[in-house]
Formats: sequence, structure tokens, C-alpha cells
Amino acid sequence: MRRERDKIKVIPLGGVNEIGKNLTVIEYKNDIIVIDCGLKFPDEEMLGIDLVIPDISYLVKNKEKVKGIFLTHGHEDHIGALPYVLKELNVPVYGTKLTLGILETKLKEHNLLDSVKLICVKAKDVIKLENSSVEFIRTSHSIADSVAIAIHTPLGIVLHTGDFKIDYTPIDGCVADLTRFAELGRKGVILMLADSTNVERPGYTMSESTVGETFQDIFSKAKGRIIVATFASHVHRIQQVISAAEKYGRKVAFSGRSMENIVEVAKELGYINAADGVFIDIDSINKYPDDKIVIITTGSQGEPMSALSRMAASEHKKVKIVPGDMVIISATPIPGNEKLVSRVINQLFKKGAEVIYESLADVHVSGHACQEELKLMHTLVKPKFFMPVHGEYRHLKQHADLAIKLGMPPNNIILADIGDVIEVNRQFIRKNGVVTSGQVFVDGLGVGDVGNIVLRDRKHLSQDGILTVVVTIEKESGMVIAGPDIISRGFVYVRESEDLMEEAKNIVKDVLKECEEKHITEWATIKSNIKDSLRIFLYERTKRKPMILPIIMEI
Amino acid sequence: MRRERDKIKVIPLGGVNEIGKNLTVIEYKNDIIVIDCGLKFPDEEMLGIDLVIPDISYLVKNKEKVKGIFLTHGHEDHIGALPYVLKELNVPVYGTKLTLGILETKLKEHNLLDSVKLICVKAKDVIKLENSSVEFIRTSHSIADSVAIAIHTPLGIVLHTGDFKIDYTPIDGCVADLTRFAELGRKGVILMLADSTNVERPGYTMSESTVGETFQDIFSKAKGRIIVATFASHVHRIQQVISAAEKYGRKVAFSGRSMENIVEVAKELGYINAADGVFIDIDSINKYPDDKIVIITTGSQGEPMSALSRMAASEHKKVKIVPGDMVIISATPIPGNEKLVSRVINQLFKKGAEVIYESLADVHVSGHACQEELKLMHTLVKPKFFMPVHGEYRHLKQHADLAIKLGMPPNNIILADIGDVIEVNRQFIRKNGVVTSGQVFVDGLGVGDVGNIVLRDRKHLSQDGILTVVVTIEKESGMVIAGPDIISRGFVYVRESEDLMEEAKNIVKDVLKECEEKHITEWATIKSNIKDSLRIFLYERTKRKPMILPIIMEI
Repeated sequence: MRRERDKIKVIPLGGVNEIGKNLTVIEYKNDIIVIDCGLKFPDEEMLGIDLVIPDISYLVKNKEKVKGIFLTHGHEDHIGALPYVLKELNVPVYGTKLTLGILETKLKEHNLLDSVKLICVKAKDVIKLENSSVEFIRTSHSIADSVAIAIHTPLGIVLHTGDFKIDYTPIDGCVADLTRFAELGRKGVILMLADSTNVERPGYTMSESTVGETFQDIFSKAKGRIIVATFASHVHRIQQVISAAEKYGRKVAFSGRSMENIVEVAKELGYINAADGVFIDIDSINKYPDDKIVIITTGSQGEPMSALSRMAASEHKKVKIVPGDMVIISATPIPGNEKLVSRVINQLFKKGAEVIYESLADVHVSGHACQEELKLMHTLVKPKFFMPVHGEYRHLKQHADLAIKLGMPPNNIILADIGDVIEVNRQFIRKNGVVTSGQVFVDGLGVGDVGNIVLRDRKHLSQDGILTVVVTIEKESGMVIAGPDIISRGFVYVRESEDLMEEAKNIVKDVLKECEEKHITEWATIKSNIKDSLRIFLYERTKRKPMILPIIMEI
Repeated sequence: MRRERDKIKVIPLGGVNEIGKNLTVIEYKNDIIVIDCGLKFPDEEMLGIDLVIPDISYLVKNKEKVKGIFLTHGHEDHIGALPYVLKELNVPVYGTKLTLGILETKLKEHNLLDSVKLICVKAKDVIKLENSSVEFIRTSHSIADSVAIAIHTPLGIVLHTGDFKIDYTPIDGCVADLTRFAELGRKGVILMLADSTNVERPGYTMSESTVGETFQDIFSKAKGRIIVATFASHVHRIQQVISAAEKYGRKVAFSGRSMENIVEVAKELGYINAADGVFIDIDSINKYPDDKIVIITTGSQGEPMSALSRMAASEHKKVKIVPGDMVIISATPIPGNEKLVSRVINQLFKKGAEVIYESLADVHVSGHACQEELKLMHTLVKPKFFMPVHGEYRHLKQHADLAIKLGMPPNNIILADIGDVIEVNRQFIRKNGVVTSGQVFVDGLGVGDVGNIVLRDRKHLSQDGILTVVVTIEKESGMVIAGPDIISRGFVYVRESEDLMEEAKNIVKDVLKECEEKHITEWATIKSNIKDSLRIFLYERTKRKPMILPIIMEI
């Protein structure tokens, strides 16, 4: 009878109703299992913000129960928040070899490497905890060494697919462990959480090896240098470029900090291989003929400071783009990056390079399952309950619809929001309350010190700039003894708007005079009168609403 | 012999190496012909800017030669700059009925309607000028009544396709006048300027009527209200929605200012038709059952203030989204708008609406020619020289490649930049100099008063905010008698950073003291010392670089 009231809690602290900062909490009795701990890159309206990480107050409050953070793979949106989170929550981190290799470079940068316990696991490993155990299962994704995670409890199995695709011909030969998914399905999965990123796409995601075929084809014809931009963490993609280079007798150099870092790790750990002498330093590229060179670089998303962007803008110290260069952008622009990528493509074309990108050739495939692959996973795992994850609401909703079409009762599906407490056992799945959750902004060294007020101000400043109005008043008499001075930034080009600023100054003088006459001495009132009068005046004259900052000095 | 030295000048003042603000100058002897006069929406880095229009200094300088502005169609990127340009350059404007109808609503808003000479033309009309004549030729596009423009000169014909697609089954039955293009080709086109927007897409653009079939299909199954978002100017799309509504016995209401304006014009001019009683006021929608209602709305690009966005955010006064509503987004996100559109889709799904968009059904087709249509145009027109227009550099380059594949000598193709003077006659095409050109920012009422310095400041302010440092100094003694005070906006949340601000104040005090001791009285030096010390301090402590604005008051 007791078991009837038993339940597993699932609390997404990120990764639902958004793309990024994936973090799922799974709690059974005394075990809190954290799956992934990712960051998100800021939206356009998060002005000046560097990174966004999940609010982990709930975990900090329940610190003693947290048995570890279990990683599915080494992408930023799955491990990127760890350097910040581990400072508040020092628990063991479990991950596969490449995942931990990438994580280590990050922890080193944050001087955390010695204080964190990293435990290396491989697919099929099982970690026994107090009331549950955690199993790792091989999957395929756009980074090597990715796994799904199954949590075994007396109430049944909770399966989290992580990000996945079904690739029957992956580069490392490690096909997703479909047999194990089927076994778990037969044993009894009470809840599946599954990747929804590509749910809008019909059919199948192509195999990573198809990209290799395109590379071979392009390399066989290229007459000048070849420059390939891709994600630094996509070691299989990088390996395929290297293989094509070897086949056609080209040397390979790397450019971009994250590319160099991750390639270093991947070479050490044996994920990237080449015959002796294939790799050369970027400084040596000019020692070889153009048709013997491949450069693998960061910048496939058009990131302004990346190596490819610097090449395109003639700001790269070691690589100058020349006519005859062939640039392959082996990636799709992430929504929001289209214009950045387009700018780089235009600049490269203008410099006389050939540019090959996804709309022109098959130089990229996705790392996420399309509809038919999702159906395969649902069919093998046959979960009793289902919670779509890793997607905006539109994706979660459509993933739910897909499950319903496969025969799942709508009531067995839960669309969760960040912070929702989902309770599940063999009888039911339900929402029961919420925990503290949300997003924490990282800006420079500050974690969480920039909030909505600061962002609102930045937004305001960005639109119409600021007018600072300064005036010095004698305390006793209330007389203005210096000013008012008006200084503007980001509002109008001052030299051409002298009259406007002069008039604005007169407006302030009038306000001050009126306050004096009416014996208004409250600073707050004087300031707000200045603000109001100036705002009305400026809007009438310019239809703009700069921030107005009155400062009164008292002597 | 004289004719040998004769030449036509072509000067693009917008629309090349960019998408938007199309404006091409064609000059032959005493005739300057302006084709289109469009605006562009600001890039993300143009903070606070409302619109971007072309710099028309060259036209103003050569005012007496300008015979008129000749419009190809009524889209913003072809007519949107006219209200600003006509204030500086009052010349006749030629356009087809719908184009001028839409333009009139704009001119009315700017109080310009009475001062501008609008001349209504139709396809096949020819306007005779001093040394040349201008002919209008029917095309198809995503707005009705679009035309190409042929300029007849003694040196041959210059053909500007405008934006076009080849639609064999357009809604108004007016197929592009392929016969006339062929005739012109036989007569001798020395230069063709052609739309490059879709040059990266293989095959053909589908006919507009295919979208109508999808609408019919969706309408036949829908059980609740139908809300269709599309471009206000796409009168054929709107007509197809209306036709489907009529067929299935639904009333049609409109929402969104531009939708209401343009539909009003289109109805008056006969471009939009329905049986009596089909159109109802948006205020009356609740008088009918849900399955008898269609609402046609703006907001297909997710524009934050548009009617659809307001519905999705529960901020629309007259339309509340309820479960059972079906929303059709009949458009593709323009690059840069993907996230805005996605946000609206998520909000609509959350409110329980069904949402149909391009990745789920054929509810949109492009208005621009794909590769096979471009080949048809090149093959019919057989121009001697070719200048691709309406595209970023990548598009222009690929359009050039397409022409080369069709057999055009590479030297007969010119890739022009904004402001280039292209000279062409039967013997040659060449660049010969440049004219003043560029982009003019419209911000509120200001046209051109926001330049790069203001934008750079807005960018700086948006990233890390501003610290204003104020101090009052006695002139005679150089003594500080009030302050320093520090006020920040957009930098840190002050209540949590009191210590930091206190330390910053001490830094400033130290600088002032040092200046006093060293008898530094130059304000500029004091200010720059304050700036430098604060910048270093703040960067060390926060890794942020707010704008620092020192203000010294003197009494």
C-alpha cells in the first residue's frame, strides 16, 4: 500500500518552452539526480548579457540529496552552466570520456578543476544510488559519445533520451543502442522525456556519413585552399574533413580558440585521428601550396569575433582570404543567426572566395531526430507517460500530438513549464506545485547582479539614448548657483542640434524658476517636474523618448 | 560617330548588396529616370532607428533633369521612402492604380497628397520624355499590379524587371507579358537589371493559386474561427482568403491598421471583391458563431505591435484567442524575424489555438523568381549586358553565375555597389566613378540627424549602461565643494552593489585629490583621469565597460 503513494518527482529547471539551458531534476526518495546543466545564449532583448543559466535555488536548498549531475553529452546547452553551478553546488559530475574532456577545459578556465569530482562513465554503465540507479545508453548526436539516461526505481524506469538522432552509419560505428531501448520498454518505462527539437520535420535526419560523401566530392574538385567552418565540438564532422584531406593529400590546420581547445582534447582522447604529419600549425600554412591545405575553423554561426568572421573581414592575423579559396560552411544558422551568417558569406564572396553552404550543397545534417525517428523511439520504449522536452512550446505541443497519433492517451502526456513539479507513479502523472526557478544572467564577472530593471534601462538607453541634466543648488536659499547643464549621449548628433539643446536648457530653467517661486524644495518633485517637462518637449520636437536623468547637487 | 561616345548611365542608390531600399537611377542625356524609391527596415545594430532610406543627394543636385519616379509596385521597399524623398525632390510619380492607391494613404499621413503629382499608368503605357521613353510591362509578384520597366533610348533598351515571378495561373488572370519581353529581346535590350532575391532556389516558384487550394482545404475542415495573418499589401492572398470564406459561408473582418488601410484602398479600386454582406466590422465578430468567422490580420512577421502579436499576448482589444481558434500564418519569416514569429506561434499554441504555418502546410509561396524563371527571363530578353539587382552580394554573384551558365560572357556582367556610376552603350559596360550615396536614418521626426556616433553610443549604452559622475568645483580655488556623486543606469542593480559604487566614489575622490595636489586644473584632463581610473577599476571588478560620463560643474 505504501508504494501506492510513492512517487517520482520530475522538475525541469530549464530546457522546456525554450531551446537551451537544459537541466532536469529527477527525485526519488532521498535521491536527487540532475540530468545536464546547460547554458543558453541571450536573446536580443537581453542587452549586454553574456550567458543565461538556470536558477538552481531548489538544488541548493536540497543539497544533501543531490547525488550528482549526470551529463548526456558535451554541448554548451548541456554542460555550459557547470562552471557557475558547481561553485554553489559541489557534487560529483558523471559523463562519458569526451564530455568530461570538454568540461575539463572549461573548469580549468574557471580554476575549478581541482575542486570538482568528475566520474568518467561509458555506455551500459550503471551507477547505484541510495534508492535508485542511473544507467547510460548509447545514442547518436552531433557530438561524439552522447548517451541517454535511464533511472531505475522501484516504481519503474524514467528514461531521458537526451538529444538524439538515429544514425545507422555513424562515423564511430557506435549506433544508438536500440536493443537496450527495446529491453527497457519491455521492462516498463513509466515516463519518457524525449528531445523535441526537430519534431516539425517529417521523415528522417540523414546520416552524418552523407556529409562525408559531399566533402569527398568537393575535395576531389577543389583547386585552391579549402576552409571548413563547423562547430568545434562536432568531432565526427571534423574527422570527416580530416579524412577527406588525407585522401586528397592535404594538410590540416585549425583556427579559433574553442576549435583548438576541443580538437586538442579530442586528439588526446582518440576521437580525432590522422596519419603522422597531417596536422600542421596554422602558422605553417603558407609553406605549402594552396591545393595542399585545409583549414578547419570556428565561425559557422557568423559569430562576430570568430575566426571565420575575422577572415571574412580581413582581420585574421594568419589567414587572408584570396580568390580561389573555397569556404565550406558546414552548419545551419541557428534561428537568430541568419543575418550574421549571411554577412560573412557576402564578405567571403566579395573577396573572391567560393562559398558553399547548406542551401547549395549537403554540407550539414542535423543532430536531432525527425518525426520518423521519434516514432521509432516511442515505439521501442512504449512509455506509460510522456513528457516532451528540449523545445519551445510549439515543439513540445507537436511532440505531444505525435505521441497521441501513436496511440498514447492525451492524459498521459504532460507539457511542463520550467519549475513545475511533476509527480509520477504507476497510477498517475500530475503537476503538483512549483519550485523557485528561472533564468540567471551572467554579465562579465557578475552572476545574477543584472536583473530586469537593469535590462529595461539598457533597452531604453539603446533606443533613444540619455539626457543628463545637472544643476547645483544652494541648500539654504534653494537658489540655483550652477547649471543647468545638459549632456546627451545616443540621442542626437549634438553639433547639428545646438538649438534643440539650448531650448531644452531653457525648459529646465523655467521649471527651476517655477519651483523656486512655488517654494518647492523637495528634490524628488523638482526632478520629476524636470523630467516631465523635458519629456513632453523632446517628444513633440523629435518623437523620441530618451532617458532623462536629472541630478541635483547641493552645496 | 557621336553616338559611339553616347552612353546611358545607371546608378543604383539602393537595392544592391542589400535587401531593401530599392532605387535605381537611369540617365540618358537630359533625362534622369528614377525607378522605385524604397525604404529598408533597420538592422539590429541600428539601435532605435525607425527606417532607413537612400541618400538622394545626387538626385537633388541634378533636380532639373529628373523627369519622374517610376514605380514597379507598391511594396515598402519600393515606395516607402517617397514621403521623405518627395519633400526634397518634388517630381512626378508614375505608378499603376494599386501602387498609387497605397502610396496615397502614405502621402496623406505625411500631409503631402496635395503637393505631389501622381500619374496613373497601366501595363503597355509608354511615357515619352525628352530623349527617351518609359514603358510599363505586366509582371507577377506578391502584390497586384506590378510591372517591369523598359527604357527606350537611341542606344537600345534598358530593361528593369522589378520584383517578379512567372505565375501562369495568377489570381487576377494577368500573366506576366512574356510576349512583350520576347519582342523587346528581339528589338535589342542592351542592359537588363533583374531581381536576384530567389536566385539560390532551384526550380520554380509555385503559383499563388496553390495557396488558395490549401486555404479551401483548411476551411473545409475548420470548426472554429479562422484567423489568417498575411502581408497587408498582398491583395491576391487576401482575395483568396475571402473567396474561401465565401465558399464556406464565413464572414470576413480585418484587423491591423495597415491591413484596414490597404484593404480599403483595394476594395475601392476593385482589387478585392466579395458578395454583399461578407465583410463585417471587427466589432461585430461576436455576433456570429465561431465557425462563421474569418479574421484577416497583420502580424505575419511577428512584429511586436501588430494585431496578431497583440492577440497572441492577450493585448488585442477586440479579439481574444480561445481554444478552437485556427490561426494560419500565411507568410515566411523574413531573415531576422524568425524568433519573433516563433514567439507568436508559441503564445498562440499555449492559448489552445491550432497554428498552421509554412513548415506545416503550403500556406505561402514566394513572390520572386527561382532559378528556372530567371533563366526564362534571360532567354527571352537576351540582353547584351546584365546587372543583377535586388539582393545581397551572394545573390548578385550567383545571379551572375547563372547568366554565365546561360552563355553570357563574364565581362558583360557588372556587379555594382550603391553609388557606382555604370556607363553602358552598344560597345561596353563599365564603372566610371561614384556619386554621393548611402543610407539615411529616420528616427522619430529626425531624418539624417542620427549618425554613426549616436549609434555607437547607443550600442555602448545598451551593452553595459552608463555611470554619470558629477562634481561641483569652486572656480577660484579649484576645491571640490559638492560631490562626487555617481549615478548609474543599466550597469548593475544598485541596491545589491552599494559597496561597489562606494568604492567607485572613493576612486573618483582620489583622482580629484591627486589633480588638486598636482595643480591640474584643465577640465579635460581631470575628466579623462576620472574616466581612466574608473574604467580600470570597474573592468577589474566586473569585467564590464559601462560608458563613463564625468560632469564638472563650476561655481
